[in-house]
Amino acid sequence: MTPREVDFPRWYQDVIAKAELAENGPARGSMVIRPTGYALWERMQRELDDRIKAAGAANAYFPLLIPESYLRREAEHVEGFSPELAVVTIGGGKQLEEPLVIRPTSETVIGESMARWVESYRDLPLLLNQWANVVRWELRPRLFLRTTEFLWQEGHTAHASAADARGYARRILHDVYADVLVNVLAIPVVVGRKTIRERFAGATSTYTLEAMMGDGKALQMGTSHELGQNFARAFGISYLDASGQRELAWTTSWGITTRLIGGVIMAHGDDFGLRVPPRLAPVQAAVLVVKEGNGVAEVARKLTAALHGAGVRAILDERVDVPFGRRAIDAELKGYPVRIEVGPRDIAESRVVMVRRVTGEKAQVPIDDVVSLVTPALEDDQVTLYEEALAFRERHTAEVTSVPEAIEATSVGWATLPWAAVGPAGEAELNAQGITVRCLVRADGGLPDSEDEPDLVAVVGRAY
Amino acid sequence: MTPREVDFPRWYQDVIAKAELAENGPARGSMVIRPTGYALWERMQRELDDRIKAAGAANAYFPLLIPESYLRREAEHVEGFSPELAVVTIGGGKQLEEPLVIRPTSETVIGESMARWVESYRDLPLLLNQWANVVRWELRPRLFLRTTEFLWQEGHTAHASAADARGYARRILHDVYADVLVNVLAIPVVVGRKTIRERFAGATSTYTLEAMMGDGKALQMGTSHELGQNFARAFGISYLDASGQRELAWTTSWGITTRLIGGVIMAHGDDFGLRVPPRLAPVQAAVLVVKEGNGVAEVARKLTAALHGAGVRAILDERVDVPFGRRAIDAELKGYPVRIEVGPRDIAESRVVMVRRVTGEKAQVPIDDVVSLVTPALEDDQVTLYEEALAFRERHTAEVTSVPEAIEATSVGWATLPWAAVGPAGEAELNAQGITVRCLVRADGGLPDSEDEPDLVAVVGRAY
Repeated sequence: MTPREVDFPRWYQDVIAKAELAENGPARGSMVIRPTGYALWERMQRELDDRIKAAGAANAYFPLLIPESYLRREAEHVEGFSPELAVVTIGGGKQLEEPLVIRPTSETVIGESMARWVESYRDLPLLLNQWANVVRWELRPRLFLRTTEFLWQEGHTAHASAADARGYARRILHDVYADVLVNVLAIPVVVGRKTIRERFAGATSTYTLEAMMGDGKALQMGTSHELGQNFARAFGISYLDASGQRELAWTTSWGITTRLIGGVIMAHGDDFGLRVPPRLAPVQAAVLVVKEGNGVAEVARKLTAALHGAGVRAILDERVDVPFGRRAIDAELKGYPVRIEVGPRDIAESRVVMVRRVTGEKAQVPIDDVVSLVTPALEDDQVTLYEEALAFRERHTAEVTSVPEAIEATSVGWATLPWAAVGPAGEAELNAQGITVRCLVRADGGLPDSEDEPDLVAVVGRAY
Repeated sequence: MTPREVDFPRWYQDVIAKAELAENGPARGSMVIRPTGYALWERMQRELDDRIKAAGAANAYFPLLIPESYLRREAEHVEGFSPELAVVTIGGGKQLEEPLVIRPTSETVIGESMARWVESYRDLPLLLNQWANVVRWELRPRLFLRTTEFLWQEGHTAHASAADARGYARRILHDVYADVLVNVLAIPVVVGRKTIRERFAGATSTYTLEAMMGDGKALQMGTSHELGQNFARAFGISYLDASGQRELAWTTSWGITTRLIGGVIMAHGDDFGLRVPPRLAPVQAAVLVVKEGNGVAEVARKLTAALHGAGVRAILDERVDVPFGRRAIDAELKGYPVRIEVGPRDIAESRVVMVRRVTGEKAQVPIDDVVSLVTPALEDDQVTLYEEALAFRERHTAEVTSVPEAIEATSVGWATLPWAAVGPAGEAELNAQGITVRCLVRADGGLPDSEDEPDLVAVVGRAY
């Protein structure tokens, strides 16, 4: 595997290939997510979905194919998405009268339903979410990070007031996205506001969660948007208020995608492959039978069952016809937090070897202690990964005061500087160097209500 | 609501609309699955997914868009699907060199991956599944039953021998599909083999699960296919056997779709709406606050919590600003198995009203007994729904001996008759009358290995 220091993008590709996470599909920019990669996504889905439901949103499903005319109803939206659309022109063997676009996002088709479902203030807030695939034509595809088709959840809500919409967009940002990213994926994030230039097409506010990858670049991990009354106006989402007055609703949308898998790889991976945070890990412990003899298989089976009993997601690998070294390397590549190696010689001494992926620690431990050692090890390693990532980000973030300094500093990480020292002109200057304002935050880390607030801090860097 | 007896298709549409399960989307044949309908699908997914994983298959994800040329590699397959394809001809603002079809099913694109992933017999069986949307252009759409886009799981496996492939295709049929249909959805099924005429495009054997709906028509609930070496040959899925010989693999595929929701509606629904089998039900018990007073809301909240504590999926409805009658009817329409009505007058006597959706039984019960009464009620109602559906099917299935008798009998249900008395000629005669051979079974109910076995029984009827 290419070392990270030598060529980070190549290392990234190597990890994906060798850990069997994904590969390119036949059509340009398409992706096959292999079982090891998909299992990560399923775990993320579960963690996100539980929190989305706890925030009161219900899952639904809206059509893949959207009449082209729908997108045109919101001017900024169609302008933003037109260059990326995949268009169906033939259906059932016939040329279609109106072409259908494959959803690049579903504000329009969901807006049209909302308009029918919302009658009075009693129907608000209307809180919907869907798990779906979307297509945005991608000229420079990169597995997980930029693919023509990707998987995501997209939440869409309608509210009776701007304040309620804002509160909900931010609640999702904090209680769902930041909570999962920080506490499950062990990835520190800066939660901030996008500049007008970086805003979602059709939004009035876009909030973002930005994480630093192992090469110092930023990855936008998720976004939550206030859409004002733009889509309500375009699709007629209105309600009768308590006094019988007809009012336009205020809507939000928010999404998080399979690019998170790329984020986990690049935030935590090392030169031996993936390191999966234990709370995320589909496989937290792999019990490997080194080779047969001394009733090893039986011991390994019992150990696996005992780990299951203790709530550990464990698998048993007794494929002794595959060389042990290959299987150990595979477990390392796939980033299983704990590996238990059970061999005939160890068994004779009532011991096994326990290897921790995050710290690299390797120890002989008594068989009877394995279960009681694994659980705290998983907790520790979860914390270690987060702390390592946070320390890395802090080491690679420079506090500067001017755009030229920011340009210099971001050759190896991020820079923070007063937004007043940047502004739209400085932002264009940064962009010309391939650097973007990732987000704006208040001095105390809070979310700005607009980019015109005084004393805002801009976080700038190169990004995926 | 239109009564079932008056106009069954209209009743079906009414239930879907009034129970807020789904509605038509903007593009022809497309469908919006509303939260109440989608919650049913999520429960089905969970039940199916657990069993699919227990059968050893792993989830993965393959691309939505497939080069048109892939489909052409298997002659029967392309012939079967060509009339139903949606074709993308424009991507990223440009005419595509090779059009891409939206997957109608994924044998081809998955076959192409399998060819790369399978090297030796050690890589077999390769057991994959994906949860996805597919598109098949539909000229006579009907919500849940026939829609241009639908959601499903599609399993795809590769094996070292025909016997192993056959065993796995049948294992899925019995241990996954029949188990969920019978024991969760409470729908009796006939598990049989499709005739050559009814076989999946490219398969050597198609197995099916057929259920009788409330109007006596059949609904195909799921299918599992042996694909022989057809796709292995077309895509080069080969392996080195233990002696170093290169052999073609044997593949299977199997799928079950959102049409199951239509099956639940039509198998169990009545003139008051949906009746959801308790084991499936996303909401097993709804606790309704009739109106405020006497601390009703507090009691209702405690009851809901106590039901949760007993493992019952319960919701609390305290929307006292919506008329109680409307909410009670809504609970009935949505088919919640148990409804607990908590009003100020009942509370004064330490009682609540418990209404069971399946039997219609309504009783005053002491508050303290609610939890201990609900659990057995749910179990009973699960059994009742299955038994009712089975008795209905038996009453509406005629044992006959000739094709003309079968045509007469299937005006109101199914007929069974010796396959020898039908054959391909009789099958064509039935088809001319809008009747199909739903499947072939052995006299003892077992699965035939081919349609040439002696003494097979044909199950015939009209179908959705």
